Amino acid sequence: MSTNLQTTEPDLTAIDTPFLLVDKTKFDRNVTALKVKLSPFNVELRPHLKTVKSIAGARHVLDDFNSPATVSTVKEAEAFAEAGYTNLIYAVGIAPQKLPRIQALLAKGIDISVLLDSVAQAKGVVAFCQAQNMTIPTLLEIDCDGHRGGIQPDDTRLIEIATILHQGGAELRGVLTHAGESYDCVSKGELVAAAEAERYAAVIAAEQLIAGGLPCPVVSVGSTPTAHFAENLDGVTEVRAGVYTFFDLVMAGIGVCKPSDIALSVVTSVIGHNEEKNWLFIDAGWMSLSQDRGTQSQRKDCGYGLVCDSKGDVIPGLQVIGANQEHGIIAAVDDSIDSSQLAEIVVGTQLRILPNHACATAAMHVGYYVADPEQVELDYWARIQGW
Amino acid sequence: MSTNLQTTEPDLTAIDTPFLLVDKTKFDRNVTALKVKLSPFNVELRPHLKTVKSIAGARHVLDDFNSPATVSTVKEAEAFAEAGYTNLIYAVGIAPQKLPRIQALLAKGIDISVLLDSVAQAKGVVAFCQAQNMTIPTLLEIDCDGHRGGIQPDDTRLIEIATILHQGGAELRGVLTHAGESYDCVSKGELVAAAEAERYAAVIAAEQLIAGGLPCPVVSVGSTPTAHFAENLDGVTEVRAGVYTFFDLVMAGIGVCKPSDIALSVVTSVIGHNEEKNWLFIDAGWMSLSQDRGTQSQRKDCGYGLVCDSKGDVIPGLQVIGANQEHGIIAAVDDSIDSSQLAEIVVGTQLRILPNHACATAAMHVGYYVADPEQVELDYWARIQGW
Repeated sequence: MSTNLQTTEPDLTAIDTPFLLVDKTKFDRNVTALKVKLSPFNVELRPHLKTVKSIAGARHVLDDFNSPATVSTVKEAEAFAEAGYTNLIYAVGIAPQKLPRIQALLAKGIDISVLLDSVAQAKGVVAFCQAQNMTIPTLLEIDCDGHRGGIQPDDTRLIEIATILHQGGAELRGVLTHAGESYDCVSKGELVAAAEAERYAAVIAAEQLIAGGLPCPVVSVGSTPTAHFAENLDGVTEVRAGVYTFFDLVMAGIGVCKPSDIALSVVTSVIGHNEEKNWLFIDAGWMSLSQDRGTQSQRKDCGYGLVCDSKGDVIPGLQVIGANQEHGIIAAVDDSIDSSQLAEIVVGTQLRILPNHACATAAMHVGYYVADPEQVELDYWARIQGW
Repeated sequence: MSTNLQTTEPDLTAIDTPFLLVDKTKFDRNVTALKVKLSPFNVELRPHLKTVKSIAGARHVLDDFNSPATVSTVKEAEAFAEAGYTNLIYAVGIAPQKLPRIQALLAKGIDISVLLDSVAQAKGVVAFCQAQNMTIPTLLEIDCDGHRGGIQPDDTRLIEIATILHQGGAELRGVLTHAGESYDCVSKGELVAAAEAERYAAVIAAEQLIAGGLPCPVVSVGSTPTAHFAENLDGVTEVRAGVYTFFDLVMAGIGVCKPSDIALSVVTSVIGHNEEKNWLFIDAGWMSLSQDRGTQSQRKDCGYGLVCDSKGDVIPGLQVIGANQEHGIIAAVDDSIDSSQLAEIVVGTQLRILPNHACATAAMHVGYYVADPEQVELDYWARIQGW
């Protein structure tokens, strides 16, 4: 006799497709897994809320209102601050016109840091601080892998920029780096190496600041792949990651998770067939799936997503091979499914599509329906929109 | 002395970037151009509102509340109906679970047609009509170019499906086709041919229905490229098009417009430089630009968009070459601009990015700021979201 008092599954057919669905069991498991992974290290986890981007969702990611968190827009910072969260990094290079909104958050008692990597930005922050007679916590962005922006840890401008901030009245909070290239790793060895390169760049930069008599209380690193594969975090004070909460096919392709760990899908209805081409049409096009093709360069290209049945189990051999605005096209990409089986998936059938990139797919929606086995009713998490 | 009483340009620096901007002068010109193009023909224009997707914006596209319009979601249909519009086609294959919402619109006096291309869907519509003791105007989707769905005009199922509808109590309204492959045309000759193929498929299908003793009052064709290049519309009753209102780089690549006709852009701020790589960073990533790479397969690949100065004039040689969630990377793709000129575009500078695909870029935003030379203040058009 089972002791598992599984409640009735929520009725997904009552919701008009397409819509975003969170499998809360998997979501909670993913959130816990990274906490457990990082628990042996002397670091804080600072989740990147750009993925979940939801006040209701963040409650299940952050332990309390003072938990560290990362945001990608000032709008997110304002929304999370309004909800009570107090400890934020705005992890996109700061433009001077955004400083008044940062000032307003600081004035409300929110500890929010900004990020920069140039003399021009540092001078802008300092000029603002002096004009407003205030201080702004500021992190220096370090480049650990040539991915995008940041200063090389051995660049002489590191000390120059830090000195401008420190002497000019900004609060030099520390250094931050992001191993964006880790998304292109193809083996565990590469992931471990990317994590170590990320740590090393941040720690070397921090050591330079300290050797120069400058403060560096924060040494912030992170990406979902490196957070999950770090073997050494000596010298690091905090780890950032975002997509680990949902996971996605890109992460599965890198080997950070399995497809069955993916907590996010788009629920869709079959709206037609092309019998000549053995295509199924669904009402999820790029408007609900996104146009992300992040698996295109991976060993297994998943098209616009893998196809699951109405319970969330992957149907082998099927992919969304094309996406127009409100039409998706599903076809068999190998011989695990034949045309008669495809024809049996009749108009009106609900399917679930696993996303290539959870951040991008979630961004196409105003909120999530959340299936939690502990609740009979679906929960709903509204998303934060705009900038 | 100029008689042009040009008012002061609106202050775009007062709005936090990134945001969507509509150049109302170009928008109005584009809207008028297609009306003028179609005026010699005996057809109605039925704009596809999936592009503008805004009640406020539709006022500048449709002449009055009874003007024909096309929608891509039931949510759009409900929003436009609520705003007073009465004449709609929901131009995505109908799934049976959406029929109650269609029924509710019909009950309010909205003339809304649904679309289908299979026996199964026709039986579903007929069963619903009989159960609800009502009728639903229904169009048959015709395949004119193998693009996606639809019935070939010579397929025997055309008469079979039409008969099911006509005898079963649905209202057989006619035929509809969309030359989706016209987006891949590379010459005027191909565009004219695509328009003629679209017309021919629809008219042949209509003739078959009429020869079979079935009604076919509506013969609906359209896409922006074919609408602009049609030379003969004999037998056609209406033309649909959507992206012609804004235009975009894909349409410019096909030759349907010039880049200077594009009425939509994303206004962004410079947030940094990578001096080694000669990159500019902007605060417009895929979250505001979309991930659409529609020009990738065209002769001129525009990356994630072309770069304009703050007045909207294209800066030759620049493209958005990469897009992360909230970061865009601008670089020179030819020698029309050198690294010292790039370095002069300082942090905080506003730029405008022209979109590859207006529908996709607009979909990333909750609304448009609208610059109209007849108004000092920017207008705002909220977008319809969700399904």
